This record gives sequence, structure tokens and C-alpha cells, in this order.
Amino acid sequence: MGRFYSHQVTAMLSKNQIRQVRALHRKKMRREEGRFLVEGEKVVAELLASNWPVQALYATPEFINSYSALIRQAGITAVACTADELTSISTLISNDAALAVVNCPATASFTSLAENPWILALDGINDPGNLGSLLRIADWYGIRQLVCSPETAELFNPKVIAASKGSFLRVAVSYQPLDAFFASLPQDTQVLGAYLDGACIHNFQSAGQGGVLLMGSEAHGISSALAPFVTHRITIPAFGAAESLNVAVAAAVICDNLCRLQS
Amino acid sequence: MGRFYSHQVTAMLSKNQIRQVRALHRKKMRREEGRFLVEGEKVVAELLASNWPVQALYATPEFINSYSALIRQAGITAVACTADELTSISTLISNDAALAVVNCPATASFTSLAENPWILALDGINDPGNLGSLLRIADWYGIRQLVCSPETAELFNPKVIAASKGSFLRVAVSYQPLDAFFASLPQDTQVLGAYLDGACIHNFQSAGQGGVLLMGSEAHGISSALAPFVTHRITIPAFGAAESLNVAVAAAVICDNLCRLQS
Repeated sequence: MGRFYSHQVTAMLSKNQIRQVRALHRKKMRREEGRFLVEGEKVVAELLASNWPVQALYATPEFINSYSALIRQAGITAVACTADELTSISTLISNDAALAVVNCPATASFTSLAENPWILALDGINDPGNLGSLLRIADWYGIRQLVCSPETAELFNPKVIAASKGSFLRVAVSYQPLDAFFASLPQDTQVLGAYLDGACIHNFQSAGQGGVLLMGSEAHGISSALAPFVTHRITIPAFGAAESLNVAVAAAVICDNLCRLQS
Repeated sequence: MGRFYSHQVTAMLSKNQIRQVRALHRKKMRREEGRFLVEGEKVVAELLASNWPVQALYATPEFINSYSALIRQAGITAVACTADELTSISTLISNDAALAVVNCPATASFTSLAENPWILALDGINDPGNLGSLLRIADWYGIRQLVCSPETAELFNPKVIAASKGSFLRVAVSYQPLDAFFASLPQDTQVLGAYLDGACIHNFQSAGQGGVLLMGSEAHGISSALAPFVTHRITIPAFGAAESLNVAVAAAVICDNLCRLQS
């Protein structure tokens, strides 16, 4: 910090405030209370600019100064605290300028392929960093809906939120058994499954039709129970010796090809 | 574990062994001793099958049993230990079956573009996970040489090695000031710089010529001092609202396009 503040922070967070925020580090408590944490200056600023229901904001005076208009607009009163206090309630290791407590939105439900030409379906992606990256990638490529198997990482895990870099604000995520999801789709829906031995994605012919892109975990791939729903087995061609790509990297490469081929 | 072993492990690692391995968690000691750690069953098995100079191997009896031929072939004597002992000397949080101490190879030096149609140059990629991912991606796309600015993460950081999933065995990495590197290249070398406002990579015309792909960090982009060396500013087209992609994800998408366009 090291510079003069017009309003110095001296007040300490109450034990109750600390306990309430820290409780949300745990999945069980997030679920019980229907709240989660959004941490970091940039993403909290993005959150404030959105319509999401912010329940509480803890921030440095510097942050509060810089974003006073957004804070007012969100209709909340920020709690000023020091960077050290923020670190003590945050899941982040290093200091950051703001932490928000947010009410979990109602579970997104799958709408229709008509509104979303491509849907991303995730089968057992249990690493939170990967789920966050996948949200960011979906957001880059204009995919607005993720459908996740129940074993996929929890959307409100702080690591997911952090890795998504604000994209959780724009991409709807629903959790449901994927066999039921696929069974509910119109008969002629294309379902692209990412495998290591499918057809080359570079030459995929019918990207313009849209459909579902299904990604499995690096460790287990796409569940065999879902294989019957896959209408097109696709692959990213390898030019070297690595055995595989990370699931988020692979999804990005496939989405890039789909967007290129349909545009 | 929970099943019977023909040779039960009872011996404990000596204090000296524990100290020697743990010292290599630290960059300073890795540099002083010229050794680093490779951790995890799969990558240690890959390591043993390579020509890399393994100096010591700590592993569970199960691992030693399964890979006895490779261990013999590598000419080393494995130290049997329990999963708990492995965890106590490892940088990994969860148990894994093997940990190797490896002599750092002589610093890779840049060879020539004739042998490597594409080189990946990294400007200040200081996150170890990103560097590891970039190694894996380079390996997938047949890029065998990385040239890193001195501020880029250290190759022998255990997080880099882990994220590379064995690709550190196949991709040569050198560290040097990038301005000197670019100045040393033949005049007609293509240098593609990844920017947010360049030409669309989907239509890049001269991928067949090869060259250098330069990636900057997410936070700072490509240093302004390196901009004069960039002959082609390129961009991944966005179809949604995310501000940017992770540097490793972006590199993968660009490499996929370059490989597609030149094949």
C-alpha cells in the first residue's frame, strides 16, 4: 500500500463476519447457505457491473474509492478492511483488493439448441481449475451453456470461479446425468465426442448445424455409457509425441475449429 | 495399498536421504546441486525409458515390481519406501508411487530453424503450470524447441515438470534474453506475435515457411521492446465475451492452426 488514504482503515472485521465468510470456503456450507465467494479486484469489479445478487462486499479503501459508482449501483454497502484482513478470510494465498459474498443463482436449466448453436457437455471433469478454464473458453467461443455430469467439479468452488476469470457470469451451467440429457435432445442432434481415435476435427463437415460437444476427463475419457449418444467421434491431430492434451486445451482447439468451420 | 506384498517395506529412509530430496524442492538448491525431482508413477516410468541421467529412485515395492526391467535398464538401484514416506519427501500433496532425482541436462542451446520449422518463444511466462502446459502443447504439435526469456518460470520447478506430463523429456528449453535471440535469427525469419488485435490466425498464409511463435504473459503481453521483431501480429478470433484466453490455451489454438495450414 504505502500511500496516504483519506479514510484510514482501523476497524477490524468482527468474529462473526470472519466466520461467515470462511464458512463459504467449504462446499457443504456453500450448499447449505446458497452463497459463494468471488475474490479478486478484477472479477469483483465485473461482478458489480453485472446483475448478480451480491450479498456482501469486503474490500480495501482503495478498491472502494475506485469502484464507488459500481458499488452504489449494486445497492450494497462495502465493508472496508485491510489487505491482511482480506487475506485472512480469502481462499487466495496472496492479498487482493476485494471479496464478495454472492447468492447462488437458481440452477441454470438447459434451454434449447435453437438459442445456443453449440452446447458443451462435461463428463466427470472433477478438477476445479479445468472447469474454470472451460468456462472461460466457452465464453470466448460464444458457448453460453454447459451441461455437466453430477461428478463434475462444483461451479461455486473458489478455484472454479477464479480460473473462469469472470466467465461464470456469462455462461450458464447445469448439472444432470448426461444420459438423460442426451436422451432428451431431438433425434437429429449432432453429438461430437472428443476421442483419441476419431475423425480429424480440421475437416469436420457439418459445424454449421451446431450440436453438443462432449468432453470426458483426461484420466477416464468419455464414459462408455455415453458412447452410444455420440454421433461423431472427433480427434485433434497430433504432430508430435505427447500422449494427450489437457481437457480445457483440447476443448479450446475443438471450439476454434468449429467456429472457424461454421463462420 | 491394502494387499499383500512379497517383500514388505519396513526400512525407513535415512535422515540424510530425506534431507537430500527435500532440498530439491527449492530452486536455489536445484541450481547449486544441478539436480531436480521427477514425481509420479507415469512420468517416472517415462523417465526410466528415456536416456535421462537418473541419479536416484525412491518408489513403492509395487512400482519396483512393475518396472523392474526399466529400472535395471536405467542402471540404478531403487530405494523401496512406503507411500507415506514418498509423500513426506515429495512436493505432491497426495501419495504417488515413485520419485526420481535427476541430473539437470546441460542447458539446451538453440539449434536452427532448419531442424525445427517452428520454435516457441516465451516472454515472461512466470507461472510454472503454464510453462508445463506449454511444454505439453509444444510436444503435441511437434515443436521441439522453446526459447524463454530469463523471467520465464524455471524448467526444473516441480510444478513445471508435473504439468508437462513427461513432455520435458522431448522438448528442449533454453533461456536467453529474447531481443538477442531475435537479433540472431536470419533476416527473413517470420516472427508471429500473439496480440489481441492482430490478423486472424485462421487465415494465416505462410505457415509452411515456419518461424517463431512469440507468446507474452496474460498480465503483460509481449514486451514492447520485442514488438519490433514481430513480423506478423496474429490473433485468435473471439466469438463471445471473454476478454482473453489463458496463454497455454492460446498457444495451443495457434499451433493447431499453424499445423493445419502447413499440412
